[in-house]
Amino acid sequence: MTFAPLRNDSFLRACWRQATDHTPIWLMRQAGRYLPEYMATRAKAGSFTALMRNVDAATEVTLQPLQRYALDAAILFSDILTVPDAMGLGLSFEAGEGPRFARPVRDEAAIAALALPDLERLRYVFEAVTSIRRALAGRVPLIGFSGSPWTLACYMVEGGSTSEYRLIKTLLYSRPDLMQRLLTLNADAVAAYLNAQIDAGAQAVMLFDSWGGVLADGVFQRFSLHSIQRVLGQLKRTGADGVPVPRIVFTKGGGPWLADMGALDCEVLGLDWTVNLAQARARVGEGARGKALQGNLDPSVLFAPPAQIEAEVIRTLRSFGAPHRDGDHPGPTHIFNLGHGISQHTPPEHVSALVEAVGRHSRALRCAP
Amino acid sequence: MTFAPLRNDSFLRACWRQATDHTPIWLMRQAGRYLPEYMATRAKAGSFTALMRNVDAATEVTLQPLQRYALDAAILFSDILTVPDAMGLGLSFEAGEGPRFARPVRDEAAIAALALPDLERLRYVFEAVTSIRRALAGRVPLIGFSGSPWTLACYMVEGGSTSEYRLIKTLLYSRPDLMQRLLTLNADAVAAYLNAQIDAGAQAVMLFDSWGGVLADGVFQRFSLHSIQRVLGQLKRTGADGVPVPRIVFTKGGGPWLADMGALDCEVLGLDWTVNLAQARARVGEGARGKALQGNLDPSVLFAPPAQIEAEVIRTLRSFGAPHRDGDHPGPTHIFNLGHGISQHTPPEHVSALVEAVGRHSRALRCAP
Repeated sequence: MTFAPLRNDSFLRACWRQATDHTPIWLMRQAGRYLPEYMATRAKAGSFTALMRNVDAATEVTLQPLQRYALDAAILFSDILTVPDAMGLGLSFEAGEGPRFARPVRDEAAIAALALPDLERLRYVFEAVTSIRRALAGRVPLIGFSGSPWTLACYMVEGGSTSEYRLIKTLLYSRPDLMQRLLTLNADAVAAYLNAQIDAGAQAVMLFDSWGGVLADGVFQRFSLHSIQRVLGQLKRTGADGVPVPRIVFTKGGGPWLADMGALDCEVLGLDWTVNLAQARARVGEGARGKALQGNLDPSVLFAPPAQIEAEVIRTLRSFGAPHRDGDHPGPTHIFNLGHGISQHTPPEHVSALVEAVGRHSRALRCAP
Repeated sequence: MTFAPLRNDSFLRACWRQATDHTPIWLMRQAGRYLPEYMATRAKAGSFTALMRNVDAATEVTLQPLQRYALDAAILFSDILTVPDAMGLGLSFEAGEGPRFARPVRDEAAIAALALPDLERLRYVFEAVTSIRRALAGRVPLIGFSGSPWTLACYMVEGGSTSEYRLIKTLLYSRPDLMQRLLTLNADAVAAYLNAQIDAGAQAVMLFDSWGGVLADGVFQRFSLHSIQRVLGQLKRTGADGVPVPRIVFTKGGGPWLADMGALDCEVLGLDWTVNLAQARARVGEGARGKALQGNLDPSVLFAPPAQIEAEVIRTLRSFGAPHRDGDHPGPTHIFNLGHGISQHTPPEHVSALVEAVGRHSRALRCAP
């Protein structure tokens, strides 16, 4: 497979901790419900599931935010639950209900019956990756992604969204052996899934450990972090075009375990808004084995008027401080993002204010004496 | 007012960082729905609200867990939203819905119209405190409590429970001046409320900052922590009987800000299960200005069988390590608790296993060479 040469490499450079002229920015869930053009494409497709499975429509919505905003990366439009769906759990989305599995996995027999998914069942994802990469035509790099083994397990056991995590935690504390078996299977499935995305054209990959933060200290390390490391160890290090593929890990609520996450075999750590960027940089962003840091504006800042958004952007950029300016040598770098997915209630023009402010003030930050 | 002399002072001693022969234990929400006798009393009272406002019934349910378990403290049975209710917001509880305010506070005019509540409207709480203290008859000390200024504000602005915090965060980021005005009022109301509980017989007081953890770094300090400090500065330091009253602050999700919380003018910090106790002890539990630490077992551990509960108790106790054994001199102490309220789905016999394990293993921990 050959693709157009990359014209904006600021995001990938920052992933590799190389200097850039501005702080690259992209937004988790940037192709989404806050955009009227997204709602229009989704309405045409018929449903979220249909949209996700339609390669042309998924390509279209992935590129929509790039028409509006000077973002430095695109992220595959898909769902984090495609893998368990391909394992046969029967994913559906009820209106206003969030995801639901028809066949949740709740006992030893159900876990024993699980197997790695046939990647053919996920071909619609890989085709979308290739289609999006072609449509991007080198404008910005494309990020592939998956839910983390633990996050997938939460949905697989609970059968849908939860605020209590009662079933999964009962399993975890009562039968840690079964929990590990499920996480090992998920890790291997996620690794194969991400490798296929890399083969299809993904230029970076990200693990969303959306529910890692609900675990107890010690339990997080033993279960979620350990299975993330199992994924990372299996990932291809270069893409179809021979270019190295950076790996991003984001644990929502993972702030308390930053030191542990700093030891992961990955290039970038995503941070939520509870994390102090200056402290995170000091702890895991400096030195030869440091990580690039991605984040971490509270998405709710985007509900405020542009002047307040700009003030919070400045605060966030200053908290990280000036990234290094030493060319290709690795050093501390920051990738601007939200600390979680953008809300559907965000006024689109507020995103313009955000992206503009990051571009302007991150350039100014580099010029300061 | 005179009360019977206190016979079990292990909890208060640990609050003051004095040595105890075992690690004292109590459980957040220990009088609650997981106990069939609680459900019976509540059914007799007619509703949660009626139960809370009935002094005899509130006394009865507060003492119920003490009949079953060797707990070292009682906590007033009440709701965290009594104060805004007394401000005239109109609290109600719909079945399965959680709390709801009839008149939420959402704009400048509504905030300007708020005033400190007439404490007469909260007399049922203070009468319950005195009644419970008498009924305890010196068996264990009684903890009074309130929601934190920020946590109350969340409910007051949102009008009920929320998972998005959209209205309150829009207010916070758009009009920080209004947010501060609301928090200042809440802080003064909470201080008056807790002081009246102290006058009525509360032997320790606790601030539940249940929603502090949803705030961004920097914003937490400026809004929630700042208003907590305003409460603490106004609290009476001794009770009706002249005995000093320790102050506990618990921010759920406050782990990232432990160093800031260590500077609070209070005696005890509550910790949730994401916090590593050994690290917390090293950071804020040692030294002349250290805090007693309270927590932090994941409540979901109680869904597992007794053997697993015991193993997790040992892990938690060992994580803190042996408390100091230097008599009345202040040094590191641990108060065992959950990292959040006990779940209604907890089997009551699992709580027996927990309390028994904490007693036994915390004594053994002190005998280790």
